[in-house]
Amino acid sequence: MNQSIGRTCWAIAEGYIPPYSNGPEPQFISHETVCILNAGVKDAHVEITIYYSDKDPVGPYLVTVPAQRTKHIRFNNLTDPEPIPHDTDFASVITSDVPIVVQHTRLDSRQAENALLSTMAFPGN
Amino acid sequence: MNQSIGRTCWAIAEGYIPPYSNGPEPQFISHETVCILNAGVKDAHVEITIYYSDKDPVGPYLVTVPAQRTKHIRFNNLTDPEPIPHDTDFASVITSDVPIVVQHTRLDSRQAENALLSTMAFPGN
Amino acid sequence: MNQSIGRTCWAIAEGYIPPYSNGPEPQFISHETVCILNAGVKDAHVEITIYYSDKDPVGPYLVTVPAQRTKHIRFNNLTDPEPIPHDTDFASVITSDVPIVVQHTRLDSRQAENALLSTMAFPGN
Amino acid sequence: MNQSIGRTCWAIAEGYIPPYSNGPEPQFISHETVCILNAGVKDAHVEITIYYSDKDPVGPYLVTVPAQRTKHIRFNNLTDPEPIPHDTDFASVITSDVPIVVQHTRLDSRQAENALLSTMAFPGN
Repeated sequence: MNQSIGRTCWAIAEGYIPPYSNGPEPQFISHETVCILNAGVKDAHVEITIYYSDKDPVGPYLVTVPAQRTKHIRFNNLTDPEPIPHDTDFASVITSDVPIVVQHTRLDSRQAENALLSTMAFPGN
Repeated sequence: MNQSIGRTCWAIAEGYIPPYSNGPEPQFISHETVCILNAGVKDAHVEITIYYSDKDPVGPYLVTVPAQRTKHIRFNNLTDPEPIPHDTDFASVITSDVPIVVQHTRLDSRQAENALLSTMAFPGN
Repeated sequence: MNQSIGRTCWAIAEGYIPPYSNGPEPQFISHETVCILNAGVKDAHVEITIYYSDKDPVGPYLVTVPAQRTKHIRFNNLTDPEPIPHDTDFASVITSDVPIVVQHTRLDSRQAENALLSTMAFPGN
Repeated sequence: MNQSIGRTCWAIAEGYIPPYSNGPEPQFISHETVCILNAGVKDAHVEITIYYSDKDPVGPYLVTVPAQRTKHIRFNNLTDPEPIPHDTDFASVITSDVPIVVQHTRLDSRQAENALLSTMAFPGN
């Protein structure tokens, strides 16, 4: 149960933060999420790099996921070095110093009813 | 057809039980499901551990999936050692003594129309 | 372009045919689909076995996917050896004599607006 | 951060461009998207081949994804050698001369509220 599971490099080719939302906040704010599980016994120091279609990559965004914890990170909330623009295509690479598991989820509430998508990220090594 | 397929350790980084629902029960109760297939000829003794963002992991939750059977388990229905709180981020690790296949699905019926997501879990070994 | 891609054994742990639908037929009939791509130069002779939670597996259902063709098969339409009951949890194993790629999709139109899910199946060998 | 991640051959077994849409354009035009991330330092020369159920494959469609860029390509927008028909099942194989990551997403806005699906493509080598 305590052993580590996952990889140290992951990629998500799809990324898009819808520009507006419907429904009560914060749950129904349209969001793009990277869910990280660190099942191991050492803290994970995670670096996220954002790729765009028309400019150089931005990052790293630094996140720590403590040992035996999960963190569901909304791309909307990443601000350092800079916020990710809405209504813009992006992709991301997630690296860590210890094995983690990475999953990608979007809640789109632009219209009256929300829509969901999710997929495991691609394990790079 | 009778041979075993799958792995003995799986992870799901995303987990969230919506706090409320719309529509006829039990089909439209918002739920988070782990679907397990045991295509082999021996019963699978499965252990599920739940990881949180702010407290120690809880588990194992024990489930038996008989030989050549599938079980679609709603996280909502896991009660021993304790129920999983709603409206809370979690992740899970699923281990088994024989190979199984694990898939993650959510039906979200908080708004009038339901939304769905699904992905294969990450095979850990 | 002509070379074969994929595996010869796949599993889908999630399966569920919603019992009713909304919207114009046949596109909006609630359905569970297994999408098969045979990119190779030999026809694929595919066998699908259905696993249940409370009875023995049923199959094989036989499907041929010609060379360099795709086939999107609705579980709703499988009838031999027997139709798959609606509103019932199932899982499936898909085997082939040549490499294929298998993806799982559901359109759920029980409520006024449809919901979608999709994931690659799990490659078993 | 600069190193390459991914594979040079990918497959998507599911493909379907809904024949109509609801909502403001172009965001809510029903679309089927292949998201490609090229995290490496060399431009990716990508070839997409489309497979059908009842005729020979069509392609290659040629796309360049520059180094350290992502491109989210709507199948709707591929025109050379020929547009992909709507309301028709298809599948695709994506090859590249350098490693890339490929993800498949659909926004279906045929009904009043949109539905979403996404999955990583299948890495073929």
